[in-house]
Amino acid sequence: MFGQRFATRINSFASDAAGYWPGLAGKPSLAQMIRRAATVPGLSELDLNYPDHASGNPAEVAALVADCGLALNGLAMRYYTNPAFKRGAFTNPDAAVRREAIDLTRHGIDAARAMGAPMMTLWLGQDGYDYAFQCDYARLWADEIAGIAEVAAHDPDCLVSIEYKPNEPRAYSLLKDAATTLIAIDEVGAANLGVTLDFAHSLYADEQPACAAAMIQRRSRLLGLHLNDGYAKRDDGLMVGAVHPQATLELLHEVHRGGYDGAIYFDTFPDASGLDPVAECAANIRTVRQMLQAVDALDRDNRLAEAQARQDPVAALQIAGAALTGQRTGD
Amino acid sequence: MFGQRFATRINSFASDAAGYWPGLAGKPSLAQMIRRAATVPGLSELDLNYPDHASGNPAEVAALVADCGLALNGLAMRYYTNPAFKRGAFTNPDAAVRREAIDLTRHGIDAARAMGAPMMTLWLGQDGYDYAFQCDYARLWADEIAGIAEVAAHDPDCLVSIEYKPNEPRAYSLLKDAATTLIAIDEVGAANLGVTLDFAHSLYADEQPACAAAMIQRRSRLLGLHLNDGYAKRDDGLMVGAVHPQATLELLHEVHRGGYDGAIYFDTFPDASGLDPVAECAANIRTVRQMLQAVDALDRDNRLAEAQARQDPVAALQIAGAALTGQRTGD
Amino acid sequence: MFGQRFATRINSFASDAAGYWPGLAGKPSLAQMIRRAATVPGLSELDLNYPDHASGNPAEVAALVADCGLALNGLAMRYYTNPAFKRGAFTNPDAAVRREAIDLTRHGIDAARAMGAPMMTLWLGQDGYDYAFQCDYARLWADEIAGIAEVAAHDPDCLVSIEYKPNEPRAYSLLKDAATTLIAIDEVGAANLGVTLDFAHSLYADEQPACAAAMIQRRSRLLGLHLNDGYAKRDDGLMVGAVHPQATLELLHEVHRGGYDGAIYFDTFPDASGLDPVAECAANIRTVRQMLQAVDALDRDNRLAEAQARQDPVAALQIAGAALTGQRTGD
Amino acid sequence: MFGQRFATRINSFASDAAGYWPGLAGKPSLAQMIRRAATVPGLSELDLNYPDHASGNPAEVAALVADCGLALNGLAMRYYTNPAFKRGAFTNPDAAVRREAIDLTRHGIDAARAMGAPMMTLWLGQDGYDYAFQCDYARLWADEIAGIAEVAAHDPDCLVSIEYKPNEPRAYSLLKDAATTLIAIDEVGAANLGVTLDFAHSLYADEQPACAAAMIQRRSRLLGLHLNDGYAKRDDGLMVGAVHPQATLELLHEVHRGGYDGAIYFDTFPDASGLDPVAECAANIRTVRQMLQAVDALDRDNRLAEAQARQDPVAALQIAGAALTGQRTGD
Repeated sequence: MFGQRFATRINSFASDAAGYWPGLAGKPSLAQMIRRAATVPGLSELDLNYPDHASGNPAEVAALVADCGLALNGLAMRYYTNPAFKRGAFTNPDAAVRREAIDLTRHGIDAARAMGAPMMTLWLGQDGYDYAFQCDYARLWADEIAGIAEVAAHDPDCLVSIEYKPNEPRAYSLLKDAATTLIAIDEVGAANLGVTLDFAHSLYADEQPACAAAMIQRRSRLLGLHLNDGYAKRDDGLMVGAVHPQATLELLHEVHRGGYDGAIYFDTFPDASGLDPVAECAANIRTVRQMLQAVDALDRDNRLAEAQARQDPVAALQIAGAALTGQRTGD
Repeated sequence: MFGQRFATRINSFASDAAGYWPGLAGKPSLAQMIRRAATVPGLSELDLNYPDHASGNPAEVAALVADCGLALNGLAMRYYTNPAFKRGAFTNPDAAVRREAIDLTRHGIDAARAMGAPMMTLWLGQDGYDYAFQCDYARLWADEIAGIAEVAAHDPDCLVSIEYKPNEPRAYSLLKDAATTLIAIDEVGAANLGVTLDFAHSLYADEQPACAAAMIQRRSRLLGLHLNDGYAKRDDGLMVGAVHPQATLELLHEVHRGGYDGAIYFDTFPDASGLDPVAECAANIRTVRQMLQAVDALDRDNRLAEAQARQDPVAALQIAGAALTGQRTGD
Repeated sequence: MFGQRFATRINSFASDAAGYWPGLAGKPSLAQMIRRAATVPGLSELDLNYPDHASGNPAEVAALVADCGLALNGLAMRYYTNPAFKRGAFTNPDAAVRREAIDLTRHGIDAARAMGAPMMTLWLGQDGYDYAFQCDYARLWADEIAGIAEVAAHDPDCLVSIEYKPNEPRAYSLLKDAATTLIAIDEVGAANLGVTLDFAHSLYADEQPACAAAMIQRRSRLLGLHLNDGYAKRDDGLMVGAVHPQATLELLHEVHRGGYDGAIYFDTFPDASGLDPVAECAANIRTVRQMLQAVDALDRDNRLAEAQARQDPVAALQIAGAALTGQRTGD
Repeated sequence: MFGQRFATRINSFASDAAGYWPGLAGKPSLAQMIRRAATVPGLSELDLNYPDHASGNPAEVAALVADCGLALNGLAMRYYTNPAFKRGAFTNPDAAVRREAIDLTRHGIDAARAMGAPMMTLWLGQDGYDYAFQCDYARLWADEIAGIAEVAAHDPDCLVSIEYKPNEPRAYSLLKDAATTLIAIDEVGAANLGVTLDFAHSLYADEQPACAAAMIQRRSRLLGLHLNDGYAKRDDGLMVGAVHPQATLELLHEVHRGGYDGAIYFDTFPDASGLDPVAECAANIRTVRQMLQAVDALDRDNRLAEAQARQDPVAALQIAGAALTGQRTGD
């Protein structure tokens, strides 16, 4: 099951719109982007943003996706509709704005159910602060926990996955790394909660992604896996394996071992630098498939476990490297 | 009580030894460093390292400190005696080395009790990894938890405080930030455990230190407060307030509010650049005393709480700044 | 002269538009933002972006600014009009797009002249790369130098100032720090070229801003000074002095000593978190005025120079701190 | 020629001394470390530190190296003999200490000549600052330039290579990145000066190493190439290619294209975590040899140049990846 489902970010397919749709004035429609995405060989699913992509008639949008031969992996909340969300969604100083954010999320959960993809990803990027002395941290935390609790309770049959990120747009996000997110989930205590690990977010949270995944799978559930790459300073959105192939392979090995069988989602930004998003997505799928073969090879061989028992990186990396290139090592 | 006790790192007082002790061959003795530290106006306490400073006759060392008019704040473990500790103390791949690290810590706890300073700080800097694929993260975590549990159980009347740090000497420390440390403490579940927050460690763990302190004080206990400063990239060990005065003041305000009344310890490295450690420590005490006056001023005034309720940094920072410079703001 | 001219980013004044202009549908007009900016006590100048703010009738826009009692400090290029600029302006792989970027810049320089503010700031953020192996670095550099040379030669009476930034939107900017920018300026060799130092960019380029300024003023000319603050990880756009007051004061002291007498420009993002931009800008001016008094005090006193001759940070920071709070130190 | 000479750090071979030399009391001797290094298959050269390894009788030490079948690649200065160097070598506030540092370097250059390895690497790690306001940057720079000029002039037949590093031991090094170092070399203007690029230093200077190398080879000379790897936060000293294989391959490709034919030196720290330094060094040589085959493959094929002309990372990374794994790509 693991490694059969590949999903991607739909907005990537607005990249180089003028080149792909000659004569197009303005931005492509959602339908146009979905149809373009459907041309990627091997792509099976999409995530859509709520409310941006699915506020009107969710069933219609779901049909649009299905008509292209794709499935829907889930929805992801975006808190942009009210400019007041800039000062916080669940942690906004204004109770009315907090209420609006929570209600918007509940409607988003309803939409996900209506679309047959009962998973909502929460990236609470607006919930944080920029300055020393700006807020009462206890208050901020209590509001965040209360908000998450309410939306998790809204529909116990819809999975709610929290995607952490160190900063941007706020200088400090409240849910900035795996461990903080796990504490929040522990405090909320709802069975339908889990975590989405984004590789680039994890890197610039100064985590080793596989170590973060092990902690997530031990303390909660891994519900989403966003692959991409970057330079561990910011959310670069680069192609999978382009910078840190070993850390990516280690992450795939770790989540597979921990039982993850959800979609592998590409959260990359080909549109940021005008790349061909179809070729870029195809390259990501190709890279991950090679890595999954390496994961299989590592699983059929106990030498990696032996090297890890000795904490011997010289042997362990040679074994992993050989698995990746399909070679046998003789040691 | 808060702000009456100032402690410092003893090895700082080896700085510029040739200038301070003309004719000294080699390094100063512990007794020489203690006597030099005792000349700092306002300094009341020292932390010593175990086994380095207190392995022989703990009571004798304690008397040495007392004779200089200082008290002992506690001991701090250092795992350097066996080179094998480079590969881990509680998480060493070799069970015999893990046992040695645990037993050394238990002896250290006994020494702290014998010296009348029942607090042991654990900085488990060797417990981590350098490479992808180097270790089994679940195994590493289980060993860390088991080690902490055993030393915490050794003497329930001795406080055991975990000082987290992102990296160095290992590329990744296992207990790298406040949230991860709180999860470990939660899993161990011992009443005598708590956390030491080091300002520079917190900065380069990408935390806002006051936010980390609030989380620590809500979920566990703050047992140690190490002040210093730096550039949020590494453990610079600079003078208090030299780079981030507002974040330092915010931290003092937060821990005071949370009930911290332990010593304020200066974990700075005047010896790294040959500064006069007496003048440097005196400057740190002077800076903190000014900041504590500002904390008092902020506590007597509800305008900060009002600004924080609005999450208004323009007002909040002006109020904090005025408290720091002893001015009244009229707005 | 230094410290009499305060300029700011105009787009900040779109912040909380619904609160400021009740009933406003959509975004405020440029005229509305200018009129709002003009209410900031002490603000004397604006920078506008080209072509966004000044492509139609430059003289008309200049009159709009003047009518509000403000002056124009200069224009700043933005390369957003053609989506192809995402892949580079002067370094685009397509010669036609490079030509378009250069010509757009030349028109911008003409507009600056027409507006009576003969300074164009170039932030070449699109000129860089995201991936290893993506480009031929020699080619990229040669194209960047050629582009700068052509626009500098277009009108020798218009100053052209290069604003460096480590990354964003590209993972790596070509002109990423002061030293690289100075090498580029050296290679172009035009008399009307100089550098704009942005405090937050400098921080996250891992520079000490005053050290970068000293290098710029020794090797070229400082033509622009953008103040703000941040956490040295990304372009946070915070209020001046909110995080690093000493480094900010040191920068002001250094540029004053080096003869800078241009405007002090606030490149902050109150709109990113919905702050009141008038109060935020007023706070920045207040902070800088206090710092300029400290600069004066430091200049009237030779104790700082003496401490620096000894490289004695304990004394130097005490002197600087006392200057900032208006106190006398007695040592 | 390129890729035939492999050198390494000698102190690595003190790692796990008790395991390698049972019964050894204390640290191994230089001779013991050299003999151990000589067991690494493929290793051809060593760098030694001055004065640590070569202050007594340089010719004798050179013979020791030769007797083990190794050559000497050069010497590297270390400024540890006088504790006053902590406050600076060439930039020390005390003229007598500056003189001592310069004279020590001149003796080191004489020793390198006497050993038949006329290359001295200068890592001026002590030359920098820790605090805002600590120093007069113009003075610091002038002293650095004067010191480099004097040691470069001491013996024009000895190459002098400057190894830059962002920080450590100082919070800010003066020669912190490639561009700053190139400016210094430009100001000194001596023909025997050049640059040593250390991969991990370059990463945490926020450079793409191949881009820095291209700049160095265009403006000066690349005289030393230190390979290792890390997480772009600090000087981790990890095995080559363990984290950033593509960036390492790109660097090798770039320096080969730029004509570098010096030794490939491994500046890794197996001793920091108790690894077997012989196995670790052998792994580094194996990794680099695979990469050099890929460099050859890339040179025989014009598809990489075509992809770079289009700045097309999807194609370029696929070509590079295929070269690394020895596969043909069909696109």
